[in-house]
Amino acid sequence: MTDTMTIPDTTGTDVFEDRESVVRSYCRNWPVVFDRASGAEQVTEDGDRYLDFFSGAGALNYGHNHPALKTALLDYLSEDRVVHSLDMFTVAKRDFLRAFEETVLRPRGLDYRVQLPGPTGTNAVETALKIARKATGRTDVVSFTNAFHGMTLGSLAVTGNSMKRAGAGTPLYHSSTAPYDDYLDGSTPDFAWLERVWADGGSGLALPAAVIVETVQGEGGLNAARPEWLRALADLCARFGVLLIVDDVQAGCGRTGRFFSFEEAGIVPDIVCLSKSLSGLGLPFSVTLLKPELDLWEPGEHNGTFRGFNPAFVTATAALREFWSDDTFAAQVRERGAQLRTGLEQISARVPGSAYRGRGLLAGLRFEDPTLAGRVATEAFDQHLLVETSGADSEVVKVMPPLTVTAAELQRGLDILDRSVRSVLAVAA
Amino acid sequence: MTDTMTIPDTTGTDVFEDRESVVRSYCRNWPVVFDRASGAEQVTEDGDRYLDFFSGAGALNYGHNHPALKTALLDYLSEDRVVHSLDMFTVAKRDFLRAFEETVLRPRGLDYRVQLPGPTGTNAVETALKIARKATGRTDVVSFTNAFHGMTLGSLAVTGNSMKRAGAGTPLYHSSTAPYDDYLDGSTPDFAWLERVWADGGSGLALPAAVIVETVQGEGGLNAARPEWLRALADLCARFGVLLIVDDVQAGCGRTGRFFSFEEAGIVPDIVCLSKSLSGLGLPFSVTLLKPELDLWEPGEHNGTFRGFNPAFVTATAALREFWSDDTFAAQVRERGAQLRTGLEQISARVPGSAYRGRGLLAGLRFEDPTLAGRVATEAFDQHLLVETSGADSEVVKVMPPLTVTAAELQRGLDILDRSVRSVLAVAA
Amino acid sequence: MTDTMTIPDTTGTDVFEDRESVVRSYCRNWPVVFDRASGAEQVTEDGDRYLDFFSGAGALNYGHNHPALKTALLDYLSEDRVVHSLDMFTVAKRDFLRAFEETVLRPRGLDYRVQLPGPTGTNAVETALKIARKATGRTDVVSFTNAFHGMTLGSLAVTGNSMKRAGAGTPLYHSSTAPYDDYLDGSTPDFAWLERVWADGGSGLALPAAVIVETVQGEGGLNAARPEWLRALADLCARFGVLLIVDDVQAGCGRTGRFFSFEEAGIVPDIVCLSKSLSGLGLPFSVTLLKPELDLWEPGEHNGTFRGFNPAFVTATAALREFWSDDTFAAQVRERGAQLRTGLEQISARVPGSAYRGRGLLAGLRFEDPTLAGRVATEAFDQHLLVETSGADSEVVKVMPPLTVTAAELQRGLDILDRSVRSVLAVAA
Amino acid sequence: MTDTMTIPDTTGTDVFEDRESVVRSYCRNWPVVFDRASGAEQVTEDGDRYLDFFSGAGALNYGHNHPALKTALLDYLSEDRVVHSLDMFTVAKRDFLRAFEETVLRPRGLDYRVQLPGPTGTNAVETALKIARKATGRTDVVSFTNAFHGMTLGSLAVTGNSMKRAGAGTPLYHSSTAPYDDYLDGSTPDFAWLERVWADGGSGLALPAAVIVETVQGEGGLNAARPEWLRALADLCARFGVLLIVDDVQAGCGRTGRFFSFEEAGIVPDIVCLSKSLSGLGLPFSVTLLKPELDLWEPGEHNGTFRGFNPAFVTATAALREFWSDDTFAAQVRERGAQLRTGLEQISARVPGSAYRGRGLLAGLRFEDPTLAGRVATEAFDQHLLVETSGADSEVVKVMPPLTVTAAELQRGLDILDRSVRSVLAVAA
Repeated sequence: MTDTMTIPDTTGTDVFEDRESVVRSYCRNWPVVFDRASGAEQVTEDGDRYLDFFSGAGALNYGHNHPALKTALLDYLSEDRVVHSLDMFTVAKRDFLRAFEETVLRPRGLDYRVQLPGPTGTNAVETALKIARKATGRTDVVSFTNAFHGMTLGSLAVTGNSMKRAGAGTPLYHSSTAPYDDYLDGSTPDFAWLERVWADGGSGLALPAAVIVETVQGEGGLNAARPEWLRALADLCARFGVLLIVDDVQAGCGRTGRFFSFEEAGIVPDIVCLSKSLSGLGLPFSVTLLKPELDLWEPGEHNGTFRGFNPAFVTATAALREFWSDDTFAAQVRERGAQLRTGLEQISARVPGSAYRGRGLLAGLRFEDPTLAGRVATEAFDQHLLVETSGADSEVVKVMPPLTVTAAELQRGLDILDRSVRSVLAVAA
Repeated sequence: MTDTMTIPDTTGTDVFEDRESVVRSYCRNWPVVFDRASGAEQVTEDGDRYLDFFSGAGALNYGHNHPALKTALLDYLSEDRVVHSLDMFTVAKRDFLRAFEETVLRPRGLDYRVQLPGPTGTNAVETALKIARKATGRTDVVSFTNAFHGMTLGSLAVTGNSMKRAGAGTPLYHSSTAPYDDYLDGSTPDFAWLERVWADGGSGLALPAAVIVETVQGEGGLNAARPEWLRALADLCARFGVLLIVDDVQAGCGRTGRFFSFEEAGIVPDIVCLSKSLSGLGLPFSVTLLKPELDLWEPGEHNGTFRGFNPAFVTATAALREFWSDDTFAAQVRERGAQLRTGLEQISARVPGSAYRGRGLLAGLRFEDPTLAGRVATEAFDQHLLVETSGADSEVVKVMPPLTVTAAELQRGLDILDRSVRSVLAVAA
Repeated sequence: MTDTMTIPDTTGTDVFEDRESVVRSYCRNWPVVFDRASGAEQVTEDGDRYLDFFSGAGALNYGHNHPALKTALLDYLSEDRVVHSLDMFTVAKRDFLRAFEETVLRPRGLDYRVQLPGPTGTNAVETALKIARKATGRTDVVSFTNAFHGMTLGSLAVTGNSMKRAGAGTPLYHSSTAPYDDYLDGSTPDFAWLERVWADGGSGLALPAAVIVETVQGEGGLNAARPEWLRALADLCARFGVLLIVDDVQAGCGRTGRFFSFEEAGIVPDIVCLSKSLSGLGLPFSVTLLKPELDLWEPGEHNGTFRGFNPAFVTATAALREFWSDDTFAAQVRERGAQLRTGLEQISARVPGSAYRGRGLLAGLRFEDPTLAGRVATEAFDQHLLVETSGADSEVVKVMPPLTVTAAELQRGLDILDRSVRSVLAVAA
Repeated sequence: MTDTMTIPDTTGTDVFEDRESVVRSYCRNWPVVFDRASGAEQVTEDGDRYLDFFSGAGALNYGHNHPALKTALLDYLSEDRVVHSLDMFTVAKRDFLRAFEETVLRPRGLDYRVQLPGPTGTNAVETALKIARKATGRTDVVSFTNAFHGMTLGSLAVTGNSMKRAGAGTPLYHSSTAPYDDYLDGSTPDFAWLERVWADGGSGLALPAAVIVETVQGEGGLNAARPEWLRALADLCARFGVLLIVDDVQAGCGRTGRFFSFEEAGIVPDIVCLSKSLSGLGLPFSVTLLKPELDLWEPGEHNGTFRGFNPAFVTATAALREFWSDDTFAAQVRERGAQLRTGLEQISARVPGSAYRGRGLLAGLRFEDPTLAGRVATEAFDQHLLVETSGADSEVVKVMPPLTVTAAELQRGLDILDRSVRSVLAVAA
């Protein structure tokens, strides 16, 4: 049964067009070929420079090729040290665990066990969902409207976007949806619904294993939960014995002005997912943090080939030591976040129906007319600024500079954005 | 609602024990701390040398830190080239696509579209399952007894191991199991069951979207399907319009003596999953290969933060150019595979009830008494050889040297294995 | 493999205890053996008479053994006419369809197709859910907190009670729960949630096939929906193309003062389920009413052995002709309903925290202390009145006399109830 | 939101066409209106007489309106005895339980608890599945190719027919299919597959709660399992602690020559479902029989409005006393079964590719050309014999006379069938 495929002669043609799946997406809005990058800047093969306020969708919080991280990695690789080790012990892993304990856990009074799943955010989320179900013996997980937690089947079941959900090709199971903060425009008391149904044996909704939440919905429109809402959620979960999972894949690693995005609210989740900027240099890496009493796995019960990727340990360790040994860096991020908010609100003031969304350096502008955001992003690209859109209808322009952005760079980006908005509105008018 | 956690003082203690989740596994059998590695050798922080016939569970087919790959990566990183790019266009991605076309696709007459999902095997499998369901409009997928396809929820549903399945904490959906080659000891004609139920409107089994198969079951006991069985499967699928997915994550990239493990059978799957050794240096990377008519995605319908990890493009390109420009390397792998088989069969000849399992350099010894395999692996470790076990009852010692292993190294490993078996049997006797 | 079972000698013992499954329930509260019955009265084998304000949980709206219905049945049976006919044509079925058209459909301006599924309420509900899914191509169905729709797996999935749901022994699928009228004590606008999530492509909740609702929740605590709430629901469904199913199994057939319980609200559901009192004499019978455009079945696509039970056609026809040829009977039911409400409210006035619940002759008293209702029912039984409890915590005493009850009988029952409440409160005080 | 429906004026038109759902089925093949019936005969409103070898799909084993049953029912109804009682105690229920114990259980050495679910076969099956899942704590149930167990969602999940399964409008869960006896034409050893996968922790198939089986597949083509196959199944289940459910809804109540169809094989199922002919007169009635150790229900955990239908108790008691007090009747059924087999085999001998299928008075002729069976049934109807077809492709003519059929009547039916086959073949030739 040997098929024979006819192969087109593609010599000299566009190999992206010919070979890469049509699922490719960002390249459609930014149809250039990037080659070099440094800090907040990407450079195409033709030498065109772009100010990058996209930051790898949050995977490049310290900018491209930060010297401290890069040097550590080059040193490690040059010395023929172990690259790939699954869950064997390595020196690099030990260094990472120590750095994480010393710079992240201990200063915050947090006692988490560190699980190293496959090196992507969705893997960390799948891990969190599994252990929450195992620990509680319950199956359902509550997620929120417009949540995004990943594309593998378990994570997709707790993701809101209907196009992405339909991509599963099967129904999605064991999740139910609750309204995110302010989803119903303040018309209903927070958590009235969950509190009532969890207490009511006739509600039809069984007590869930867990609630999973993003403190800021990076893909779902940059909705930011109020600290008091997060505290009420944590309190509700505690009262009912429901585990609280914070998916800090996008909002964590400093993006909102503290290492964890939930610190501001003063809550301590039962489980935390980190990925994206954890390695710092853009290397695939993720961890799932578990309260010790939840670390109930059998050895190897969850595994994955790339769960011990030492180059990521190395750059993550370098990043933790470089940026998180004290609050200096975080304070600067909060300052830049304030600058970004001011800038966005100034633009918004001129656009009826538009509004600031987000928190820290994970922020943007929402437009009532959902077509505007995409047109603004396109215009910005033409002016050599990379910003993407967010939200179910792509109704938000999302501004996500590296955390290391200078005040001047940030202002430059805001100026481009301002011009882009004016330009789009001029055409629209 | 601010919890306060009590943090143990762990200064000077074992940070692995204190911080890493108990899910860790390999380190339990190999309780040393590795630091350096080269070719077929890993070295602990104390300088102890181990012959590595485990090869990162198949992620290190070219050995540790192969110079050609390492040099390419160091060069790339030193020049501040783009590390992380999602699905933007980059020079490194273009180079990879061209290399893949020139060394892999074109010489084999294969016309696949290359999808770049999240960089792990399970991500490639989830992607394959999604597109198979989308393309056919059907939901079920047939997998085989003792299959292993990954730990995220979609892949887990087509995985056989009951301990791993139970880890999901929920039922698993839309998969059904069929007997792998020789599962019923030759007592039933191949595919009698599938052929009958697919044709019978009263069977209770709907026509599936796809069948997913490993040509050699790397985790499930090193069962190797006969070429004629694979051809019959491909033929059956074609007759019923069921898509054939080959999960070549472990058996692919040369492991069985050809780039794809299914080449020997002369079949052309509709979808192929590659990962593990695709980057060559142990960097997270995976691709899903789709026949062009199956490339039916909406842009961004499946995505993932690390779906464009340029360092992996770079080392993968280097590996393809180094090893796959002609058949020289593959021929050598086949030769070493023959040597391994001979060696294993010689050992087996002395152990009643034991038998050779596998194909190429993905092979091992199955023991009737399932406790023997683990004891042999432990004894081998004591003699500084890394081999793991495979199978639902860990009943197989799995021997998986790098493909670059020399004849002498291979013989040295076989000798250690031989001594280990003798030693275990002596104790058992 | 012939098991041998040891059979206890049960001669002379209680065959109910020895042989009937422990699932039996009503007999536990009413431990007497009934033998005869007429109108609102049941008589035990010992000649004890009970006033029956339970009415077969709504299956005996015209009282026990109503002469008009009984005579019709005896005549039919005596003449050797067809008893069992599946979905063949019979004279009895034709008579029923004509009577249903003339007394029910035509006077109300309703154009429904009549489907005859298996003769139980849950069968009618399963039928409704199937055709709603088939007609819309969607899978999910929204039901309400404290709903009860039946015990087979499809109906159970839209039922609220957690004990009954757990009885399934598997998860329940493709349903989601919304708050019934006043479930959140007026704190949230009606349907704010459903309206928002159905419009939002990021909500995580796909548009459902249907909403299924009881206008009064007979098992779930006698909550009665306001007409304006029902109208808003019907309007919402219409705007989104979601089908509206009214489960009128318990509240229909005149129980609330009109043939259909939804008439008062002035809505026209897409699908209606009737059973219980449809045959009038307590014979198993149910119908599913479909708007003609939803009658999309293949012949035999849904079937069932007892879907054509002619004795039920005969008594149903007699009942329709006897009671529903004009509004006289319904007007009298509404009058009795008012009398019942007044009586219950007078009792309630003396019990702090208690409140009237329900509508028409489907009403009761809710107690804040959920143990009171059961104790009142027990006391009433001792005084030879049959009333049951309702609600997730059995917190409501449910009063459900036959619709044919006289004003004097009703008063007699209310007096017993009054005495029972006083007696229980005296003990409690 | 008051819809107004336009109602067609249907005076004088065909109310079946106008009002009854298009799901109706038998009336399409037999387009006459039946009115009277007695024994093996049905009479239309126009006085045409039909020999009924369909017997209500097995619900009329004692023929239409058997005098002993009818008299008992008329007496009961005339005396105003309780008709509808849910699971209260009644004299009629006690009489039934005693008769069932004395005529069925005790003589066969069987110690079952009798559960009275809703009065249809599918309700009995749903009940069996629930309790099997509850008792074992497992979720999956194995059913067989071409099984038919009912149309509600739980029963449908263990039913084979793809058209009926698709009618669910959702996926069906927690069932898996195994080959019925001789499904694979003898090419594989019985139960090789189930035995292997249940023992193998890597098979991907968890141990099920139960296996559900019909000894003869009444709807699925009249395949009859060999006694040794049933014994091997019972033995396999016992060894693995899997419950064995026999669905005796169609094959039970004497249809195969003994009260239970499984008696011939000498097995004792853990759970048995009975319905159809249990009431004897065609009244809706079903029971689920449970080994005492499986009677683990909470009171009311499974319920249903019509679970205590006293008229069915009365006719069932009369039928048990009339036909099952000794083996006389059963012996006569076995004799008629032999006569039927001889007659069918004589016809078959003249039709190449045709074959006898079934057992006892549940038998038929299978044709290789699946269109023949339907044409034969149509021809038979024209000659005033009612026989239906069976099988996924309606490839079997199913002959199911009342068990009370006389030898002469049976011969008359066989003669008509013979002529019908000749006539159809003549046309085909």
